[in-house]
Amino acid sequence: MRKRRNPPKRPPGLSHVATDRAGRTSARMVDVGAKPVRARAALAQAELVFPPGLLERVLDGRGPKGPIEELARAAGILAAKRTGELVPLCHPLGLDVVEIGFERLAVDRLRITCRAACQGRTGVEMEALVGAALAALTVYDMSKALDPGIAIERLELVEKRGGSSGPWKRPAGRAARKKQA
Amino acid sequence: MRKRRNPPKRPPGLSHVATDRAGRTSARMVDVGAKPVRARAALAQAELVFPPGLLERVLDGRGPKGPIEELARAAGILAAKRTGELVPLCHPLGLDVVEIGFERLAVDRLRITCRAACQGRTGVEMEALVGAALAALTVYDMSKALDPGIAIERLELVEKRGGSSGPWKRPAGRAARKKQA
Amino acid sequence: MRKRRNPPKRPPGLSHVATDRAGRTSARMVDVGAKPVRARAALAQAELVFPPGLLERVLDGRGPKGPIEELARAAGILAAKRTGELVPLCHPLGLDVVEIGFERLAVDRLRITCRAACQGRTGVEMEALVGAALAALTVYDMSKALDPGIAIERLELVEKRGGSSGPWKRPAGRAARKKQA
Amino acid sequence: MRKRRNPPKRPPGLSHVATDRAGRTSARMVDVGAKPVRARAALAQAELVFPPGLLERVLDGRGPKGPIEELARAAGILAAKRTGELVPLCHPLGLDVVEIGFERLAVDRLRITCRAACQGRTGVEMEALVGAALAALTVYDMSKALDPGIAIERLELVEKRGGSSGPWKRPAGRAARKKQA
Amino acid sequence: MRKRRNPPKRPPGLSHVATDRAGRTSARMVDVGAKPVRARAALAQAELVFPPGLLERVLDGRGPKGPIEELARAAGILAAKRTGELVPLCHPLGLDVVEIGFERLAVDRLRITCRAACQGRTGVEMEALVGAALAALTVYDMSKALDPGIAIERLELVEKRGGSSGPWKRPAGRAARKKQA
Amino acid sequence: MRKRRNPPKRPPGLSHVATDRAGRTSARMVDVGAKPVRARAALAQAELVFPPGLLERVLDGRGPKGPIEELARAAGILAAKRTGELVPLCHPLGLDVVEIGFERLAVDRLRITCRAACQGRTGVEMEALVGAALAALTVYDMSKALDPGIAIERLELVEKRGGSSGPWKRPAGRAARKKQA
Repeated sequence: MRKRRNPPKRPPGLSHVATDRAGRTSARMVDVGAKPVRARAALAQAELVFPPGLLERVLDGRGPKGPIEELARAAGILAAKRTGELVPLCHPLGLDVVEIGFERLAVDRLRITCRAACQGRTGVEMEALVGAALAALTVYDMSKALDPGIAIERLELVEKRGGSSGPWKRPAGRAARKKQA
Repeated sequence: MRKRRNPPKRPPGLSHVATDRAGRTSARMVDVGAKPVRARAALAQAELVFPPGLLERVLDGRGPKGPIEELARAAGILAAKRTGELVPLCHPLGLDVVEIGFERLAVDRLRITCRAACQGRTGVEMEALVGAALAALTVYDMSKALDPGIAIERLELVEKRGGSSGPWKRPAGRAARKKQA
Repeated sequence: MRKRRNPPKRPPGLSHVATDRAGRTSARMVDVGAKPVRARAALAQAELVFPPGLLERVLDGRGPKGPIEELARAAGILAAKRTGELVPLCHPLGLDVVEIGFERLAVDRLRITCRAACQGRTGVEMEALVGAALAALTVYDMSKALDPGIAIERLELVEKRGGSSGPWKRPAGRAARKKQA
Repeated sequence: MRKRRNPPKRPPGLSHVATDRAGRTSARMVDVGAKPVRARAALAQAELVFPPGLLERVLDGRGPKGPIEELARAAGILAAKRTGELVPLCHPLGLDVVEIGFERLAVDRLRITCRAACQGRTGVEMEALVGAALAALTVYDMSKALDPGIAIERLELVEKRGGSSGPWKRPAGRAARKKQA
Repeated sequence: MRKRRNPPKRPPGLSHVATDRAGRTSARMVDVGAKPVRARAALAQAELVFPPGLLERVLDGRGPKGPIEELARAAGILAAKRTGELVPLCHPLGLDVVEIGFERLAVDRLRITCRAACQGRTGVEMEALVGAALAALTVYDMSKALDPGIAIERLELVEKRGGSSGPWKRPAGRAARKKQA
Repeated sequence: MRKRRNPPKRPPGLSHVATDRAGRTSARMVDVGAKPVRARAALAQAELVFPPGLLERVLDGRGPKGPIEELARAAGILAAKRTGELVPLCHPLGLDVVEIGFERLAVDRLRITCRAACQGRTGVEMEALVGAALAALTVYDMSKALDPGIAIERLELVEKRGGSSGPWKRPAGRAARKKQA
């Protein structure tokens, strides 16, 4: 049984692809056994873009209609907890919290955020992204009868903390748009 | 036990939200028991946008690097089959096929498509969208060490067929961009 | 390979226990291959009993507080769809609908109902029961900080239709209590 | 990205419901990141009530018939381990043990207990309850052909240890009934 | 959206690998949409080989000890029902029955069989194999403290029926060994 | 609530079977609460045996064809992470790594290995075995159209480290065969 180590030959940056001496590539799960347990957090988002006039019917006052918001929250939290079952090379993680938020960015644009945190040997970026994606897809599912053309934009990581490379924040030019409504 | 029917009072269009006489809203799963079994299909997509120069390192010749493409395919197909576990109001469906495709749209843009088909009482839009989302998130997971700023855009339905309202196609102005590479 | 049939020797009534010639018993999944596809429905319920004064804090006007009700609904519907993964001898079923209802029965008693329906070769009693159980457990989870002594009573089948033995309804004396509030 | 903390404004006791300044409520998963890792345990139970004469046919000597008991045990243990997938706001936990017990309480009453333990930042009450519920539902599934009127009563927490508020035990008056057989 | 068809260019026999014009291969799920619904069945097996003297301690009289047998049965049936979640290119299927059998083949050899049946557009070979594999692994898990050297041999398909190519039976020379005990 | 301890009366070696005073046996999950957290690793394998001439068509140069290898890898890793959901008495574990390897042992024999590692209170033998089994079954699924007679042999533990009883290695006579190609 080989000793536990990260193979030295991987192409710089592609942490999940290994290359053997013959140049053949294969997928690999990173061995996090030697990494320290740290408090880690990540914030991801997704934006739903509605055809003109439709978002009003999905919203109830300031935010999305109660049932839509709560079902999307349930879906996002449950999916984030199952990230390791859905993304092949993700490590199973014991999350401390998953938090789903809703914010109207513009007259036809709804932002969904997902914040995840854990104390573990690897980050929770994928958990936050999976949570944001499934929350957004659940809003889509409950609204699509209005118009199947609703789209999901900017499914992306906003910020992460706790990794060995220090905190990361999406550069301003590429950051999520400011609230305009 | 109430007879099986779709309640008449739902607000037009919001098929998954019911309103009672007091105006209180609640989520509802649509009862598809009275709908005919039909061949249904849907095509969804997601686009990964890479910071300049990075997509080259993810690609191998014409398409994404073998291991990345195949793991993303596995993740997308497996997730599409589990849509009913992930999206609360989706019906469990016996899919006939799930097909994941990869296409380079531009120098920094990779399109992932997911086509799903079944013979059932309801459509497979959500299956196609969930498959596209998880395939794209798996590519992100395997590439994020290069740059966490990679984003997912245009996670959206492209086309669907087989529903009672006839085929639907995303209008051209809002359609997925043409291949430019 | 033995021909598909239900073994003749099972003890009357215990459909899921087989007995061999030596008298040894073992569990068995009933083979439903020869049964006709029929529209089947079931209604189950669970009652949450609260220590005095607590239900008020869980309710919002006429029914349970929005977030509690919607998360319990999501949990109940999702669990009902996964019954075949949870109850070993249940058949996987393509449900047409799962419907979760909430009703205040008395000053300290909240009734949760779950109606499930499908078109299949076997009934949906377990789906309705699993949905009612998980919806009730989710209400408990969200309320237990008030008092861990909240209990779940009368987790039971109320009614079923569509089976070969005709419709069944819980006898009145043992039926769910009438609304008293 | 907000700092990790439990928001101060939650209504007393309803740990899983947050209220914003406008009085709108939403569901929330408690952030357990700041809680210490402690040995935690919980004991839950469920009682199956059989129509007269039926329990004898389910029992084999002192306890439930072997196959029924073992399948219910498998179902209870497996479900307890998946509590975080089933109850939306539960944290995923690495359980040290799940133990399912069976006891005949009276001529027509079978008690099922589920004890769960872990070393973690939050309690295992829901794991114990989910385990007891699914074990009881599996006994119901395997016995329901005898009579669908079998009911599940007193699905409730009996005891818990290890939390910051100290041990808790169900008060005697509301405790599980003593064995009478 | 491409029309539903099986691409003509696949290499003969490798139904799950597609080759494009450039010779690049990729995985594919077979589209079963045009296949007829048929009664299909499959029988698979696995043999556990025990170091000398150990099988006696696992057996109770004629067969495996009750708890081991029943837990292995539960695991096998539950896993067979989830085949579509575990094997990436398998179709989700509504199984009519899964049956797990145990047979002592020799003094140190225990055979586990899994029979699966459905009415669907594709066969249930993988369901039978997954059921046999997980039942055998569960026996291993419960016995491994005796000796981790217990091995699983001959995990293989024994027979299948209902496919378009007619019934298939494992040739005698390579068939499962006859009972010798 | 009983104190946490391992009952003293279990039959020597059968860690997952408990015996009560009346001699009745039942399944039990071992309580690992008192065990120390240690780095643990296990290596398991499975060998696919192909009818003459077929393995060539599955291989691409030195190893299995890219899509087959990568889908089998995805399936093996994903299944290993879900071992606690599949094997009833296994503890849920946070794995540090799962690694799937492919090696041609002979002209008609392909060896698949699965190495798993974690830092926990119990070993990862079952995770390694489940990963090897599902990777092998996925290769079978993608090759079975060539010949359903392909078999899986020697699904077995090769080595483990980190347990209280010290490292274990399969004795040479029963070890996996040497590479002969």
